Amino acid sequence: MRPRLAAAASAFVLAVAVSVGAASRPGAAGPLAADSAKVAAGLRDRIASGSHASEWVRELTDRAGPRLAGSPGDRAAVAVALEMLRTAGFVNVHAEKVTVPVWARTSESGQITAPVSQILALTALGGSVATPEGGIEAEVLGVRSFDELEARKSAVSGKIVFFDVPMERAKDGSGYEKAVVYRSEGPSRAARMGAVAVLVRSIGTDTNRLPHTGAFEYAADAPKIPAAALSIPDADFLARWLARGKPVRVRVALACGARPDAESANVVGEVPGGAAPDEIVVLGAHLDSWDLGRGAIDDGAGCGIVIEAARQIAALPTRPRRTVRVVLFANEENGMAGGKAYAAAHAHELLRHAAALEADSGTGRPRGLSWNAGPPAAPLLSQIAGLLEGLQAGHLTAGGYGGVDISPLILSGVPLVGLEQDESTYFDFHHTANDTFDKIVPADLDRATAAAAVAAWCLADSPGPIDRIPPEKRKMPW
Amino acid sequence: MRPRLAAAASAFVLAVAVSVGAASRPGAAGPLAADSAKVAAGLRDRIASGSHASEWVRELTDRAGPRLAGSPGDRAAVAVALEMLRTAGFVNVHAEKVTVPVWARTSESGQITAPVSQILALTALGGSVATPEGGIEAEVLGVRSFDELEARKSAVSGKIVFFDVPMERAKDGSGYEKAVVYRSEGPSRAARMGAVAVLVRSIGTDTNRLPHTGAFEYAADAPKIPAAALSIPDADFLARWLARGKPVRVRVALACGARPDAESANVVGEVPGGAAPDEIVVLGAHLDSWDLGRGAIDDGAGCGIVIEAARQIAALPTRPRRTVRVVLFANEENGMAGGKAYAAAHAHELLRHAAALEADSGTGRPRGLSWNAGPPAAPLLSQIAGLLEGLQAGHLTAGGYGGVDISPLILSGVPLVGLEQDESTYFDFHHTANDTFDKIVPADLDRATAAAAVAAWCLADSPGPIDRIPPEKRKMPW
Repeated sequence: MRPRLAAAASAFVLAVAVSVGAASRPGAAGPLAADSAKVAAGLRDRIASGSHASEWVRELTDRAGPRLAGSPGDRAAVAVALEMLRTAGFVNVHAEKVTVPVWARTSESGQITAPVSQILALTALGGSVATPEGGIEAEVLGVRSFDELEARKSAVSGKIVFFDVPMERAKDGSGYEKAVVYRSEGPSRAARMGAVAVLVRSIGTDTNRLPHTGAFEYAADAPKIPAAALSIPDADFLARWLARGKPVRVRVALACGARPDAESANVVGEVPGGAAPDEIVVLGAHLDSWDLGRGAIDDGAGCGIVIEAARQIAALPTRPRRTVRVVLFANEENGMAGGKAYAAAHAHELLRHAAALEADSGTGRPRGLSWNAGPPAAPLLSQIAGLLEGLQAGHLTAGGYGGVDISPLILSGVPLVGLEQDESTYFDFHHTANDTFDKIVPADLDRATAAAAVAAWCLADSPGPIDRIPPEKRKMPW
Repeated sequence: MRPRLAAAASAFVLAVAVSVGAASRPGAAGPLAADSAKVAAGLRDRIASGSHASEWVRELTDRAGPRLAGSPGDRAAVAVALEMLRTAGFVNVHAEKVTVPVWARTSESGQITAPVSQILALTALGGSVATPEGGIEAEVLGVRSFDELEARKSAVSGKIVFFDVPMERAKDGSGYEKAVVYRSEGPSRAARMGAVAVLVRSIGTDTNRLPHTGAFEYAADAPKIPAAALSIPDADFLARWLARGKPVRVRVALACGARPDAESANVVGEVPGGAAPDEIVVLGAHLDSWDLGRGAIDDGAGCGIVIEAARQIAALPTRPRRTVRVVLFANEENGMAGGKAYAAAHAHELLRHAAALEADSGTGRPRGLSWNAGPPAAPLLSQIAGLLEGLQAGHLTAGGYGGVDISPLILSGVPLVGLEQDESTYFDFHHTANDTFDKIVPADLDRATAAAAVAAWCLADSPGPIDRIPPEKRKMPW
């Protein structure tokens, strides 16, 4: 999943005029005690110079591999994660049961059948219904926008609609939001006009013949038609055939679909706080992944970041004020059941959740933090940003929801923080078979881990309460 | 296929002390008339500044796609190539029948079955026998060299042998020769020791989950066991599991094998010579490709280079002395039937073959030429190299066989020239599903085309005969 809302629209940068030296200056003045800021700076420098973050990713992805909610890999991942959190030295390590929706693919194929016969590399979008056995064959209508679809509405009936909208590469991943609507909304929009199936140009920035899957949901008022993503070279290929002007026919065969719900789990472990152990700072990532790759960048990387950040905090001679709770969420990719289950199961203690931070942006260097809290929290965030300047990661973005899994906590006003990373190459691999351990860049992941540890420490050790999201902003983003 | 022998061992550079300006100085003095050298320089500059080379590649790969010898795509390619050569304005355009061996894959899969259950991305090597239905499951023995295999000989029986030898990236493609022996010889070497199947780390330089196929032949004295290539991330993955020390079991299922011979063709077209039209300079590339991709870099690129080089020569106001004959060979990848058939069908006129040049190194910038001819031909090659300096492509390598398809001409002493290109990225895509048109870099392909055109023009227009390969060197390289 990982859709993101237009936080950028309200983005601003809390200027930190003088770059803070990595070792010498522990951070601008702010609510944190000087000693506490010094601890944060030490964490930052130690982790950035080398950590175990990528080892956690390797262990998870080698042992559990693909781990779509409810799959055998997902069950393996829960066991591996429990073991890893114990190895990391956390306390209160346990699994919290989550009932997850299950979707599975068995086989898939596609080809142009006229005017030539050519195989297309495609993959079913997560949540798609199957085609009839033998597939669906129809003429293709290619469009480059919803406006064009609307303009050609009368030609849609009986066709396979092909959304051919390239995604732009960007450090902040902003190309994703613009393009992903064709995956999330395209199938039902085309179905309402009588399309028999949908093909989407993969939402990605690579040129590999490895299509990008990802979730979508059928609108209640639209027929459920099969939907698949073409690899980017195959999208270009189909577009060139369409540009020749003759009718182009495609056959697509998808064996996939929903299965009965299954049991999975959020996996939890804690670094107990000193002065206020009942107050909690959640450090979250998601344990599940799509089925095509091994979930190394999405979101093995986030798991590695939060486990290692918390482990480094646990290894300090000083405890933070509050408890740091690592939560590896179930079913982020196709249902968000883990995030919802956490919010429900912990409803009684959400008022004692001082903050939640999520890491779900891959292996790239940290850029900064998004944050959503009461305005009086700004000086604390500014102080954290000052500490992150030593990693060139002092960029603050106001707004957003921190991450998909922690987003339900918005309803209780829990301050939400998102770790923002360089996503320049993230969408080369995202949701493809290529999401494997070799894509992890250990030095960059260490820096991201350092940023997460600094933020977690500061949120957990700030002396006063962190102002909660104002009631009028406590709305789910979707 | 595309194995290459150790030409580098005897390589030397004919020093061109002063870089030749692209437009002003048409080439060092030499056997070519000054006017002829001027024509070559004009060809070079015109083509390098933009040509149709990549359009030919697009047309071939879009219309014919994958074209393994004897497949439907191969038949389509012959028809498309005939049309392209006519469009290019060549004369005597025709197909010359070639009987080709046929091998086909239907399905393939692999997984680690113990100590975990994990899918492996693999592909059958070309020429492999099938496994029994349901596959072969056995413990894996991983080795990093033939020496290690020899040392562990007693442990091979009943195992799947995994050759895990990384290929090095190099401009001159020299990493290929070092690594490809594990593909070409590995299966039979392991089979002789009692292995039940072979897995090879893909011979490639990428990190995509797209395995590299390629041909091998079973030795006559070894059992025929199934052989497949793992994608590079999967080879690393399997190696990590082996490094954990517990027995690792893999199941590999390949449905593939030899089929009855089929008919294909070498496709031929000519630019007639002026003064000596009976003398022939062959400009060759191969029309077939592996089945996984669409054969854009291997060897659609070569087809684009030679068609466009000859078309540009045909468009000159002056004819070259000799006839330039474009030959798009059948079945280079898995049998060399096209090259052998050409030599046999044209045996009567091979003495009138003044030279043959082949382009089979992808889309990269030209680096220079390899050449194998009588030593007195050196001044002509040196003059050509001088002309190519304007493209930073003046490197000469003595020896070799020009290219797989033209190599049988060595037996008749035909001077053989190979177009050498920058192969830094060639083996990222070679023999994979990723070999598609988007990998073509038009500006680089134009420069390679310019180099081929210069060489072709000079070979075809040199006033005297080009000295033939001395009799003692007229031996097939394999």
